[in-house]
Amino acid sequence: MKTYDIAVIPGDGTGPEVIREALKVLDAASARFGFKLNYTHYDLGGERYLRTGETLPDSVLAELRRFPAILLGAIGHPGVKPGILEKGILLRIRFELEQYINLRPVRLYDARFCPLKDKRPEDIDFVVVRENNEGLYTGAGGFVFKGTPHEVAIQESINTRRGVERCLRYAFEFARKRHAQTPWRGLKPEEVAEGKRAQLTLCGKTNVLTYAFDLWERAFHEVGREYPDVKRDYAHVDATTMWFVKNPEWFDVIVTDNMFGDIITDLGAMIQGGMGIAAGGNINPAGTSMFEPIGGSAPKYTGKGVINPLAAICAGQMMLAHLGETAAAAAVEEAVIRVVREKLKSLAAGQMGYSTSEVGDLVASLV
Amino acid sequence: MKTYDIAVIPGDGTGPEVIREALKVLDAASARFGFKLNYTHYDLGGERYLRTGETLPDSVLAELRRFPAILLGAIGHPGVKPGILEKGILLRIRFELEQYINLRPVRLYDARFCPLKDKRPEDIDFVVVRENNEGLYTGAGGFVFKGTPHEVAIQESINTRRGVERCLRYAFEFARKRHAQTPWRGLKPEEVAEGKRAQLTLCGKTNVLTYAFDLWERAFHEVGREYPDVKRDYAHVDATTMWFVKNPEWFDVIVTDNMFGDIITDLGAMIQGGMGIAAGGNINPAGTSMFEPIGGSAPKYTGKGVINPLAAICAGQMMLAHLGETAAAAAVEEAVIRVVREKLKSLAAGQMGYSTSEVGDLVASLV
Ligand SMILES: CC(C)[C@H](C(=O)O)[C@@H](O)C(=O)O
Ligand SMILES: CC(C)[C@H](C(=O)O)[C@@H](O)C(=O)O
Repeated sequence: MKTYDIAVIPGDGTGPEVIREALKVLDAASARFGFKLNYTHYDLGGERYLRTGETLPDSVLAELRRFPAILLGAIGHPGVKPGILEKGILLRIRFELEQYINLRPVRLYDARFCPLKDKRPEDIDFVVVRENNEGLYTGAGGFVFKGTPHEVAIQESINTRRGVERCLRYAFEFARKRHAQTPWRGLKPEEVAEGKRAQLTLCGKTNVLTYAFDLWERAFHEVGREYPDVKRDYAHVDATTMWFVKNPEWFDVIVTDNMFGDIITDLGAMIQGGMGIAAGGNINPAGTSMFEPIGGSAPKYTGKGVINPLAAICAGQMMLAHLGETAAAAAVEEAVIRVVREKLKSLAAGQMGYSTSEVGDLVASLV
Repeated sequence: MKTYDIAVIPGDGTGPEVIREALKVLDAASARFGFKLNYTHYDLGGERYLRTGETLPDSVLAELRRFPAILLGAIGHPGVKPGILEKGILLRIRFELEQYINLRPVRLYDARFCPLKDKRPEDIDFVVVRENNEGLYTGAGGFVFKGTPHEVAIQESINTRRGVERCLRYAFEFARKRHAQTPWRGLKPEEVAEGKRAQLTLCGKTNVLTYAFDLWERAFHEVGREYPDVKRDYAHVDATTMWFVKNPEWFDVIVTDNMFGDIITDLGAMIQGGMGIAAGGNINPAGTSMFEPIGGSAPKYTGKGVINPLAAICAGQMMLAHLGETAAAAAVEEAVIRVVREKLKSLAAGQMGYSTSEVGDLVASLV
């Protein structure tokens, strides 16, 4: 039987609770579709840091490299200064394992849970491909005259042709494949018949960030010429946030840098129904990828059994798709859609009408 | 009679059309409240650039310095490469005239025009104070090995203690004053009675931009200690975009850097009803300030008489408030509110139920 070794990092806060449900659903899927998932749990996060002073020991990082995939619950602890765990664990894994893509599908499953007026599921169905290893996230920068009235703080966005190009190439391939598999869900059948193409939108700020996005824009068009079947589009980041609210149906696949991607994917999570449902993948196409619900550790809901596990379940679903278990991934997504549409009162913690583990049971029973 | 000299830059596209209506309303206000506005028109923008190759001649810049205020229509021309007019005119004025604050009130006048479900005017009523002279907008950066596979493009965010501090100080003063004048509109009377304070939220990314926002955060708390009447709050920029959609009522005054301010104010414009209504001020408290509708030149609506002039009228209203003509500013705002609530079918171009000049007439008649 096909077997996948999976590293599991339940992490902080509600992380362990939602990971439990994700594993429940993954086990149901593997049983039904005839493969095996072998979990190795890793204790990383705020508790360990407070106990030992360690964030991510080198030895653990070395072990993580041996897995095709990691499933992460949440990193973040109210007792630890912001930045330490994020940089020491989450960003360190993204960088050291060269997970250079952050993939965030934004899909509305039920109009009831959309904060926007008049938007239907077919209007909110796009994917953000965020560069995940460069830009403002490199940590480059410094202080001059720190602590004096003459202080200057510099933060640098570093963009390499290689880093940008591999991200763009991934995005073009993804747009092409997405369109081939499921004709872009926002398209009407007659548009598909007319040959309407997949669309990749570069989200940037070419009129102000004239170095960074000059490189991005040149590479976008140069790489894009190899993908004549993918229509190239451009939107400034400020305008992008407006279209997310007003015309999300305009988007198919979006590619952007690390910082802008961070911002627009959170906004994307909100229009798809919030943190209860939003999942992402940190992808190294040739190495170890990591899948996570993007909602954080939610300390105020910890241990109450009220947090929504669907985002973690969707992270598991993305992991299955990544591993090539396409049928299992599709079954999990269909089960999630049915539970969202037919059962839940809300996607928000404590308002679902079911407990965390009941939601996991519901999904598992439908897989 | 009190007289104010105002520089008027109608600019590109629909700029002249909306400026005409703004001046109509300003004239009605000055007639009623007994002061005089003396306009000097400047021909700047894409047409001039295409004709003469000039963006903003030094001699014009020198003249602009002599005015207390500038009213700008729009800059941007489909025949000119993006970046040239923005950097050559708009950003140059902001920088050279040290308009170090970009002030963006976000106020919903009528729930019908809000793209969000269940939000009432009292839920969307906050102000963004955007730093307007530093950060990623300085243009600092460069290329290494440009045009080769080894290319690196660097874009730098420069933050000075002086620049950040004067922005924070403005924001704290603004929050204090806003609360004193109109008890924060989102507050219930009993909350005011209980002494609920004005609130200033720093919007940043302390967990990743550990140089830039370390300076911002330290300065925020140091300056903030001088304002014990203003509650200090913090939100990551990614979370801020979520709260704009989900809980805009949480915000009172927000202070942020240039790039994040650019992004969140566009999102703010959308939740207040779109570009038809959104205005901003580029403020130099001791020099020349510039007021503008933020919607751009809208080439596809140019010359049709269908563009919404309310944003330009609101820019004029902000200018009156800035000049100290508080009663006139309040009268214009009340007139705008009445026209929005009682007359307009939509705030979007071509869908208002009235032409551009009819909307101007309506507001002017109510001032
Ligand atoms: C926790 C934080 C460092 C992280 C980021 O900024 O990338 C998060 O917001 C995300 O988007 O995954
Ligand atoms: C036109 C552009 C340069 C400008 C900016 O980025 O500041 C605009 O988006 C704004 O917010 O006023």
